[in-house]
Amino acid sequence: MSTPSRPPVYLDHAASTVMLPEAVEAMTAVHAHPGNASSLHGSGRRARRRLEESRETIAGALGARPSEVIFTGGGTESDNLAIKGIYRARRAENPERRRIIVSAVEHHAILDPAQWLADDEDAELVVLPVDSTGIVSVDDLRGALAEHAGRTALISVMWANNEVGAIQPVADLAALGAEFGVPVHSDAIQAVGHIPVDFAASGLSALSLAAHKFGGPQGTGALLLRRDVACVPLLHGGGHERDIRSGTQDVAGAVGMATALHSATGSMAATAARITRLRDRLVDVLLEVPGASLNGPVGDLRLPGNAHVTFGDCEGDSLLMLLDANGIECSTGSACTAGVARASHVLLAMGFDVAHARGSLRFSFGATSTDADVDAVAEAIGDVVDRARTAGLVSVRGGIR
Amino acid sequence: MSTPSRPPVYLDHAASTVMLPEAVEAMTAVHAHPGNASSLHGSGRRARRRLEESRETIAGALGARPSEVIFTGGGTESDNLAIKGIYRARRAENPERRRIIVSAVEHHAILDPAQWLADDEDAELVVLPVDSTGIVSVDDLRGALAEHAGRTALISVMWANNEVGAIQPVADLAALGAEFGVPVHSDAIQAVGHIPVDFAASGLSALSLAAHKFGGPQGTGALLLRRDVACVPLLHGGGHERDIRSGTQDVAGAVGMATALHSATGSMAATAARITRLRDRLVDVLLEVPGASLNGPVGDLRLPGNAHVTFGDCEGDSLLMLLDANGIECSTGSACTAGVARASHVLLAMGFDVAHARGSLRFSFGATSTDADVDAVAEAIGDVVDRARTAGLVSVRGGIR
Repeated sequence: MSTPSRPPVYLDHAASTVMLPEAVEAMTAVHAHPGNASSLHGSGRRARRRLEESRETIAGALGARPSEVIFTGGGTESDNLAIKGIYRARRAENPERRRIIVSAVEHHAILDPAQWLADDEDAELVVLPVDSTGIVSVDDLRGALAEHAGRTALISVMWANNEVGAIQPVADLAALGAEFGVPVHSDAIQAVGHIPVDFAASGLSALSLAAHKFGGPQGTGALLLRRDVACVPLLHGGGHERDIRSGTQDVAGAVGMATALHSATGSMAATAARITRLRDRLVDVLLEVPGASLNGPVGDLRLPGNAHVTFGDCEGDSLLMLLDANGIECSTGSACTAGVARASHVLLAMGFDVAHARGSLRFSFGATSTDADVDAVAEAIGDVVDRARTAGLVSVRGGIR
Repeated sequence: MSTPSRPPVYLDHAASTVMLPEAVEAMTAVHAHPGNASSLHGSGRRARRRLEESRETIAGALGARPSEVIFTGGGTESDNLAIKGIYRARRAENPERRRIIVSAVEHHAILDPAQWLADDEDAELVVLPVDSTGIVSVDDLRGALAEHAGRTALISVMWANNEVGAIQPVADLAALGAEFGVPVHSDAIQAVGHIPVDFAASGLSALSLAAHKFGGPQGTGALLLRRDVACVPLLHGGGHERDIRSGTQDVAGAVGMATALHSATGSMAATAARITRLRDRLVDVLLEVPGASLNGPVGDLRLPGNAHVTFGDCEGDSLLMLLDANGIECSTGSACTAGVARASHVLLAMGFDVAHARGSLRFSFGATSTDADVDAVAEAIGDVVDRARTAGLVSVRGGIR
């Protein structure tokens, strides 16, 4: 496959966005000085100060208290800590609490630890359905809680879906959790830095974020955790992060994350408006292709930067590779399961069949996206879909796929 | 306390060393490009290539195969993954395997997960004693295995101790493990990059490392894990890292770690010789103080960069703060438990009493250390110890401490 000489048109910001230059610069400044934030001497205290200033910045940007910010090694760790840690703490208080309620469209970083608890620690997994746009029903949660609230350890519903951009009614779900006395966690990894997220106002007990989704570094994340929510650590050791997450803190990572979040939230309204316009232009372009249809909700119920379209009678993987050969980078869904020839559980939960699910592409925008990116897709997409459809026919005949 | 205007004399490299400029530069280059290593497009494949090249570099530097390198979020995660993951996998094969054998001088990142498994998952903790220099006896391990090998899940003994620098007979311990069919893990976090570490030659089943101990970034580590050693993941999700550690890989972190390790191992012999000389000079200086004594082994049994001395009749914390006021940065032991007024479990295991343990300081050298650092300590230490002893008397009388 030829490599185009111009820089790629990057439309996969939901997988990992471009780092903000100010975040890179802030990290490099930290890297110039040694210091373990637990050390008592001057260099240690300086590292600690930078860490705590980052904690305050993150808390301030997300309507949380600094003491509610637990630094982690990324979104998957935050999700695992929330699911396993809150489950274990709730069961330790009352062994009857075996149920974990999640939505059908959660990321694998939620579904897999929940399933593991079901397999290994006697949890009972309750999966809430979604409608055809990918959104959970508050009534469904009420139904699940009305039956078995006393036996429910926790609820986890993502703030916004990584594949189709569906924004969930998190505050309503959290209010229901509060009514029934069950803690509610939300994987807000796709939401933070892109749409307003206020932890206190949400009523949530816990919330996950990952820096590389909003212009910070990979390998850095946080769990926001209310002080009154017990959580058994995943990582035991030196007792860092309120004894909930041991391990020498990554000061540069925390500073990079805080710097990026501060920038992203500061310019959020303007960026979201600009990106929404680009995204809507792209959707118009994509829907001109015969047989194309948009997946997921519209308007305020959708992340500004997300476009997710199914092109009938072809494989998303073929489309992806053909677009890549044209210098356009997107994904078939979650990067975390890329390369696995399996239909998206999100689209199946929305009621689509396997063929529809496998013929889809996700384009996701970020702060660096421009009209030229949309122009490039407009130029290429018709031909690419034609070729993918032909290839698909050949493949089916030849039994290759 | 006054802040000196000259840069501090940093002698706490074992807590977190100075990042190597080439590692910072390599990370910054990665930060300039977006890319999730799981994405299938060009940017994703480039990120993947950098990640895999880093894996190969790390494997090459440590006598491992690339597929044995599992990237993690740091040393504590690597240790937790090894202890909990191997314990759970071994018990799943045979529920009788409840014993975890560790040395008495392990880092809390080993002791605490092991203790947690004892408290929560029915493990039986067997603690091997150490001699007065902090070294484990191979015969003691043989004794422990001869009795109960069939009921032993795993053994974990650190490569080199973080407080007193004692280097353990890891290859002999691993050979014993092999003889009895029990996997042996080693926390080599203080050893990697400082003394020769060859994973294949060691005979170990698993080995932990942390980048910020040898010039790489904080928040990045790895577990070397033999392919035939089963290990239940701590973090479930997208199935990254051979399905043993899910979570978007930190490509820049991996590149920074690999770059630093390549440099550190390339110059290891020369650096170790230079640092040994500096360290020996410092020990001579420190032992001139009346009532001072060296803790830990000497010669080849000790890490090149470690000096650990007890000054009778005073508190290490006071010494640390007084030295800090003179612009000299060191520690009382592990940074991970700094600020906790508790005598070191390492020194207690070596047979010292609480007063001796609490009157000690660790000075640790790194690649940037110079004779001027030793000169600075030589100039300050006598006066500092005198003042700490006086303060100690005052505190005891006044009941302050």
